[in-house]
Amino acid sequence: MAVRMTEAEARLIEEAGRKLGPKVVVTDPKEIEPWVSDWRGRVHGASPALLSPSSTEEVVEIVRLACEHHVPLVPQGGNTGMAAGATPPADGSAILLSMRRMNRIRSISAENRLAVAEAGIVLATLHEATHDVGLRFPLTLGARGSCTIGGLTSTNAGGTQVLKFGTMRALVAGVEAVLPDGSVHTGLSGLKKDNRGYSLDQLLIGAEGTLGVITAVALRLVPAIAGRAVAWTGLDSPNKALELLRFLEARTSSIEGFELVPQDSLDLVLKHIPGTRSPLSGKHLWHALIEATTADPAATIAAELQGLLAAALQQGIIGDAALASNEAQAEAFWKLRDTISEAERAEGQTLAHDISVPVADMPAFITDAAAKVEAAFPGVVASGFGHLGDGNIHFHVRAGSHASPDWYEAEGERIMHMVDDLVTAAGGSISAEHGIGQLKRAEFARLAPPGRIHALRAIKQALDPLGIMNPGKLVP
Amino acid sequence: MAVRMTEAEARLIEEAGRKLGPKVVVTDPKEIEPWVSDWRGRVHGASPALLSPSSTEEVVEIVRLACEHHVPLVPQGGNTGMAAGATPPADGSAILLSMRRMNRIRSISAENRLAVAEAGIVLATLHEATHDVGLRFPLTLGARGSCTIGGLTSTNAGGTQVLKFGTMRALVAGVEAVLPDGSVHTGLSGLKKDNRGYSLDQLLIGAEGTLGVITAVALRLVPAIAGRAVAWTGLDSPNKALELLRFLEARTSSIEGFELVPQDSLDLVLKHIPGTRSPLSGKHLWHALIEATTADPAATIAAELQGLLAAALQQGIIGDAALASNEAQAEAFWKLRDTISEAERAEGQTLAHDISVPVADMPAFITDAAAKVEAAFPGVVASGFGHLGDGNIHFHVRAGSHASPDWYEAEGERIMHMVDDLVTAAGGSISAEHGIGQLKRAEFARLAPPGRIHALRAIKQALDPLGIMNPGKLVP
Repeated sequence: MAVRMTEAEARLIEEAGRKLGPKVVVTDPKEIEPWVSDWRGRVHGASPALLSPSSTEEVVEIVRLACEHHVPLVPQGGNTGMAAGATPPADGSAILLSMRRMNRIRSISAENRLAVAEAGIVLATLHEATHDVGLRFPLTLGARGSCTIGGLTSTNAGGTQVLKFGTMRALVAGVEAVLPDGSVHTGLSGLKKDNRGYSLDQLLIGAEGTLGVITAVALRLVPAIAGRAVAWTGLDSPNKALELLRFLEARTSSIEGFELVPQDSLDLVLKHIPGTRSPLSGKHLWHALIEATTADPAATIAAELQGLLAAALQQGIIGDAALASNEAQAEAFWKLRDTISEAERAEGQTLAHDISVPVADMPAFITDAAAKVEAAFPGVVASGFGHLGDGNIHFHVRAGSHASPDWYEAEGERIMHMVDDLVTAAGGSISAEHGIGQLKRAEFARLAPPGRIHALRAIKQALDPLGIMNPGKLVP
Repeated sequence: MAVRMTEAEARLIEEAGRKLGPKVVVTDPKEIEPWVSDWRGRVHGASPALLSPSSTEEVVEIVRLACEHHVPLVPQGGNTGMAAGATPPADGSAILLSMRRMNRIRSISAENRLAVAEAGIVLATLHEATHDVGLRFPLTLGARGSCTIGGLTSTNAGGTQVLKFGTMRALVAGVEAVLPDGSVHTGLSGLKKDNRGYSLDQLLIGAEGTLGVITAVALRLVPAIAGRAVAWTGLDSPNKALELLRFLEARTSSIEGFELVPQDSLDLVLKHIPGTRSPLSGKHLWHALIEATTADPAATIAAELQGLLAAALQQGIIGDAALASNEAQAEAFWKLRDTISEAERAEGQTLAHDISVPVADMPAFITDAAAKVEAAFPGVVASGFGHLGDGNIHFHVRAGSHASPDWYEAEGERIMHMVDDLVTAAGGSISAEHGIGQLKRAEFARLAPPGRIHALRAIKQALDPLGIMNPGKLVP
């Protein structure tokens, strides 16, 4: 497929090729093709070139050329984003800037508990490298084999260990980035205290590449895990799940993961995912998957969790519990949680919402919102699962079995509006961890207060007056 | 002392008085006088009025008037800042905006572990309120009886518990602020995950009132302390102190405070502060004050710390240790640390630097920088003390006993330049926790990269185009 190329793009590509060479400047459509659509195949873009720098200096050169020729850049890491924030516009009016060749770990300091990783490092690679020196970068998520540190930082990614360690915003100790004027912001010292003016680090985290190109990140590390215990519990309601979480948190600091799963979701997994089976013999309306970890080799983490769950059972907080007796079983428990989306897709059309409300309001919200959506759209099944301890629930609405094939097109927007209105009324966020990108921009514009939109536009205009950084993303 | 009042100021004051009443609009010079100089008496400002709103709506009204009449505002909390960031300009060209009457705690939620406090709440008041419900706001510092939540947030304050809980940036879950256009940014839901665009919360934290007026803050709480243990140790070098800290951190998560004190500083305290005595019988070149806490009533925190220090003694990390046997002794140990600045002032002229470098580099930096400064300025005594675990040291240079009374004026700037140059060369910060305010603006301008200064100015101009928010502060 030939992509229309503007004269300005042609000039930039020619000049970049001359200065940086063919390794950096890729124009073969076959090599570009895999990267111009988002990974879920929802949004299709186009770009006449893919620039692939391997150093901060090369990024500086590219940003200068983009300024000179007024050609926008679309920074991209592993292309695993959920909001199409790294997908170029369909008219080919921007050039892809792949960060995947900037893939060195510059340093790992056990003494400072810091790693400095370039933007293109894949998360799983960082996990291995830190593990090799007895340390751990605690953030993890499903796409860990593909997603990159730059993308995780630019989207302020979360994942399953946020409960204990926070999102990227809490784990990033410093950012190196090329700003839209070609200057390099250098924040990699990893200072624990630094009050020299506005935090550009924090402004770049979650900015989805619209304020600059993140080239490297200093990341906080924690001691490696010496042991973990994983348990599956059955309980009556989201309220009981929150009670269980508070019960555990008051008694131990080892809880890292706490995932809520409704029976309905578990049933779908058991139906569609081969090799899965329920950890508990009886039926429960709700389930909580719990992971506890320790860095202390002497700790008996499994016994501790078992004791706590026995007490919770006795107090009537939970109805039943099963502790994984080995790593294979622990993985099997996690698989029940991790394959919910896959099972839903196998069942039929699903509309996913990545939302958050204050933690204490979450149980009531899940129940109320599901009832309201099901009442307003007869036949659909609404349910929430996920990171209860973070107030972050993946609220999914499934088409009923009799839904027409164009259900998503016909009803999707109205359902989305209803869910987002309910979340907004509850003081929540329509994007808890996936960001705004392209896919949530209209909803963000519809629901954000005018003052906030004005402030975001003003910041964008101030730092990127030429509009060369990831146009059409995030800023309404 | 009569303050020159511009026509625009007169109009604003008249209109504000009519709309908001005499409780809000104070023009009596005697009532204004205590607030126009910084608390250390270094910088003297002037203002024709002190506006004292008691609600966010009143702040909105004031900001609108400031926009309309192009009169700048200087937001102020407890006026305990170290960089004169809340002191108005001397020519009376700006109006003081005191936040002290916005002093309600709007809510404390044990379930969400969140407090929503208005900007004017004094830190000690918040401590008491959270303690009453079995919770704790863990940040604390010397000025806790006067400093306010709004000021602490606007300066990203640190203090003595940063090691475990981080600075305000980590403890603030959300900010409510009136932006320079009079719109209200509302981030008080305390969502643990929210990826709806650039974080205005994080931009306002540490902005020293130059981007808006913080009116309320949602703060993360932790379980109340059930027990604490405080120990004083003697050791050979800053390197040994860092080794001790790492030794402890690898074995317990209860260390909250870790303060480094050189013998020289201890000697001054023992000489000048009545009722102090050394916790150890022998002499040591360096000392570390350690505080361990636990929220578990069943934990034996004193025995745990004693055991760890016995092991550290056996391994030759420390030379001696004393565990406080009761609260009075614990307070006496802390007093030795907290009165160093007072003792130094009693001894003679002192030039203080609030600096940070990466934690692992701190021991070498303290030793090298002190030697270099003492060599370059014969007669002075340079030493570092403070928050070693944060890489944040108060690096003080004392005039020798034979220094002339104008030593500070004569040598101060040259010494400051030398220290700041050494810090910058080490990748550190010339302002670890005190901010830029007025006092460090010239040094910040001298040492910050041009790209950073450009970015800060662009953000300031974008959000505050009329320049009504705390002019002359932070932005170089």
